[in-house]
Amino acid sequence: MTVFLVGAGPGDVDLLTIRAAQLLATADVVVHDRLISNEVLGLINRAAQRFDVGKVPGLSHSQHDINGLLVSLGRRHERVVRLKGGDPFVFGRGGEEAQILDEAGIDVEIVPGITSAFAGPLLAGIPVTHRGLSHGVTIVTGSTVRDSTVDFRALANADMTLVVLMGVERRAIIASELLQGGLSPSTPVAVVEWASTNQQRVVRSSLARLGSLDVKSPAVIVVGAVAALALGNVATFASSFALSS
Amino acid sequence: MTVFLVGAGPGDVDLLTIRAAQLLATADVVVHDRLISNEVLGLINRAAQRFDVGKVPGLSHSQHDINGLLVSLGRRHERVVRLKGGDPFVFGRGGEEAQILDEAGIDVEIVPGITSAFAGPLLAGIPVTHRGLSHGVTIVTGSTVRDSTVDFRALANADMTLVVLMGVERRAIIASELLQGGLSPSTPVAVVEWASTNQQRVVRSSLARLGSLDVKSPAVIVVGAVAALALGNVATFASSFALSS
Repeated sequence: MTVFLVGAGPGDVDLLTIRAAQLLATADVVVHDRLISNEVLGLINRAAQRFDVGKVPGLSHSQHDINGLLVSLGRRHERVVRLKGGDPFVFGRGGEEAQILDEAGIDVEIVPGITSAFAGPLLAGIPVTHRGLSHGVTIVTGSTVRDSTVDFRALANADMTLVVLMGVERRAIIASELLQGGLSPSTPVAVVEWASTNQQRVVRSSLARLGSLDVKSPAVIVVGAVAALALGNVATFASSFALSS
Repeated sequence: MTVFLVGAGPGDVDLLTIRAAQLLATADVVVHDRLISNEVLGLINRAAQRFDVGKVPGLSHSQHDINGLLVSLGRRHERVVRLKGGDPFVFGRGGEEAQILDEAGIDVEIVPGITSAFAGPLLAGIPVTHRGLSHGVTIVTGSTVRDSTVDFRALANADMTLVVLMGVERRAIIASELLQGGLSPSTPVAVVEWASTNQQRVVRSSLARLGSLDVKSPAVIVVGAVAALALGNVATFASSFALSS
């Protein structure tokens, strides 16, 4: 009786780990998020029961309901796979799920995945660190811009790369805070929509113009000198997505 | 004629991506780092030529030599795989290699891998972000502590997680800078040695004691409230390493 919290990576099935593919092939039950591609879901063995707990904003399953479902399934089945986009421990709320399962006395194994915070920039040819341009990288979500406990202005650092997940909606205030924090208006910015899927699109601009860019979720925002780079061939992918109706 | 810059992940062969495994199976030449496990190297097809360019400190191949080798091989072979520990674009110097190859007119495809900056904490049961404990994560290397362009004290943020790669050697000065930056001496710290391998070891302590901990490279240092967590079962692995003699 084990619940496996498994990272599905950014979308492309070939970016799944070997371990994740093995677990999907042998699971009794799979509980998955909304942003998991059809190709990844195609690796689930046919006998497995499936639950789509995609959280459509304002609708659908709450985290509380998901936690309850995982505990209940973990008590009844040998191998439950909880499949999460990206990495379960990088803005995945996997820590909360692991905690609830630990408290319920259910075995939990956590399997890392490739986070879109890094795959997004990489697949647009942007190294998040690069000699002479970026000595480090910080990852936050757009929600922290209005969170009084995180000072977004303090993240303005011309020697580091800033990656913002789920930041499209609040891109204007993010830009404004970073400018007030001291970043130059000409700081390069790249927005990577639908990283690693056949809908991938990269929009490059500057911090001054971030607020007025025509971009849509899901997307990763990269701020910093490296965002002007476009190294290698931009890869092409064939993953398609089944959005919950 | 393509050079693939491929992330090998933290060490365990099961944490390789499907894409990386496919490329190793079909490569004409593989150029790899020192910290690649025997099991990962075992996926290379037997006909492929291999180059171990592991950079033993003070010895061995310089980055300049590696760049030259990649250009030369990229001109002569159909499929060259440059296999790097972790992710090629997260402190992997993959950006420099991609740049040199681009300039030489050689096709480059970059394949992300799981960075030990995240896999290390995860495999010790530590989520780098966690509701109420950490709103974001910053990754730097130990070398930046003496780098005047990066203000290590400014990274002292009690609401974020700090991950330091290659920081074991300078752990005393890192701790000192973070304390002077305002972090509490009781801030939890975890050091994860040899993440995902059969030599994995986790040492937990506090920022006050980080400087005197008995820990060795390669290791990931995690600083922040989440470092006190130990969620799920710590996974067991069977990867062994072939260190260059």
